Amino acid sequence: MTFSDYPSKLLGNAVNEFASLPGIGKKTAFRLVMHLLRQNESDVERFGESIIKLKKEIKYCKICFNISDNDICDICSDRSRDRSLICIVENIRDVIAIENTGQYRGLYHVLGGIISPMDGIGPSDLNIDQLEEKVKSGNIGEVIFALSTTMEGDTTNYYIYRRLVPYNIKITSLSRGVAIGDELEYTDEITLGRSIINRTPFDLQK
Amino acid sequence: MTFSDYPSKLLGNAVNEFASLPGIGKKTAFRLVMHLLRQNESDVERFGESIIKLKKEIKYCKICFNISDNDICDICSDRSRDRSLICIVENIRDVIAIENTGQYRGLYHVLGGIISPMDGIGPSDLNIDQLEEKVKSGNIGEVIFALSTTMEGDTTNYYIYRRLVPYNIKITSLSRGVAIGDELEYTDEITLGRSIINRTPFDLQK
Repeated sequence: MTFSDYPSKLLGNAVNEFASLPGIGKKTAFRLVMHLLRQNESDVERFGESIIKLKKEIKYCKICFNISDNDICDICSDRSRDRSLICIVENIRDVIAIENTGQYRGLYHVLGGIISPMDGIGPSDLNIDQLEEKVKSGNIGEVIFALSTTMEGDTTNYYIYRRLVPYNIKITSLSRGVAIGDELEYTDEITLGRSIINRTPFDLQK
Repeated sequence: MTFSDYPSKLLGNAVNEFASLPGIGKKTAFRLVMHLLRQNESDVERFGESIIKLKKEIKYCKICFNISDNDICDICSDRSRDRSLICIVENIRDVIAIENTGQYRGLYHVLGGIISPMDGIGPSDLNIDQLEEKVKSGNIGEVIFALSTTMEGDTTNYYIYRRLVPYNIKITSLSRGVAIGDELEYTDEITLGRSIINRTPFDLQK
C-alpha cells in the first residue's frame, strides 16, 4: 500500500508531519495519526499543545545551559549540591544519564555539542567562554570531563584543558574500562588496554 | 538509561504524550522530542497545530463516511465515478488501499467497523441503516463486499447480505486467491482451495 493520496488534506498534513520525524516512515505515521483520530478531542489537543509549548516556552538554564522551565534549572538552584564541582557534558541527554545514576552531587556545564571541524563546529559555537568565566571566578575546585570517547570528544577535552589549565584547578575525566557485567573476551582491545593501565586497588566493597 | 526524571516539565509532558502512541516507548519518545527541540519554532508549531486541527476540523463524508475536509468527500462529489456501484469497506484505510490500485471507479460505504460480539460491536454500531437507505433509493445496481476474510468479516457480510437481498441488486465480493507473485507451496490451504473452486478462464492478457 502506498499513500500517494489521502482523502483529507488535514489527514495528509498530520501524516507528513509525523513522517518528518527520524525513524518514522509514512506507514507508521499514518498508523499514529489514525490512532490519534480515535482519541478524545481533549486528549489530542493536549498532545498538540504539549508540542507547541515545548518549543515556545522551554528555557535553557542561564548557568549550566541545561534545559529548564525557569531561568535557573533545578540542579543549579539546589543549594544542597556541591557548587565547586562541575561536570562538563555535550548535551542534556548526558545530564539525564548522569543524574539517573544518583552518584553525582555537583553541578553541570552543557557545552551544546563538541568540536567537530567536519561539521563546521568550532570552539566559539560551544559554551566554552562561559565555562572559563565560571572557573575564573575562583569558586570551582574541580572540573570533570564527561564527553564521549571519540576523536571529537578528545579534541574538545584537550581544547578545554588548555583553556582551564592556567587557573590551577583539578581537572579529571570519567573512568573508562570494562563495563560492569561485560565479559572480557567481548570487550574491545582499546577499552581493555586502558582498563589495565588505569587499574584500581582491589576493594571487596566495590 | 531510565527516564524517571526530566529536567523540565514541558519536556516530560511532551515525552509522555509521544510515549502514549502505539509502538513508541519512552526512549524513542525522548529521541523524537529532542529532535523537535532542534527544529525551528515555526516548524514545531506547525506540527502541533496539524495534530490539533486534525481532530478538531476533520469531517466524515455524509454519504460514504469516509474521512473528508468537507461535508461530502472528493470521491462522492466526483461526477465521473459510477454512482450505481458501492464498495463496502470496514474503515478508511481500506478506501485508501483500494483507491491506490487505480482499478475502482465506483463509490464507497465505510461501515466504521465489523460486527464483533466479542468486542461488543453489533449491527447498530455500524453504518448499515444508511447503506440500506441508499440501496432502497433504487439508484444502486451493485454492492461489492470488501471486508476482511475473518469470522467477523464473514458474519458482517452475511448480515448485510440478508438486509440487502430484498432489494434485488447484484451483490458481489472481492475475489480471493493466490496473491500475484506468490508461490503455491507457501500459500495456505484455504486460500489455495478457494482459488481452485473459483478458478477463472485462462487469459493470456491477464
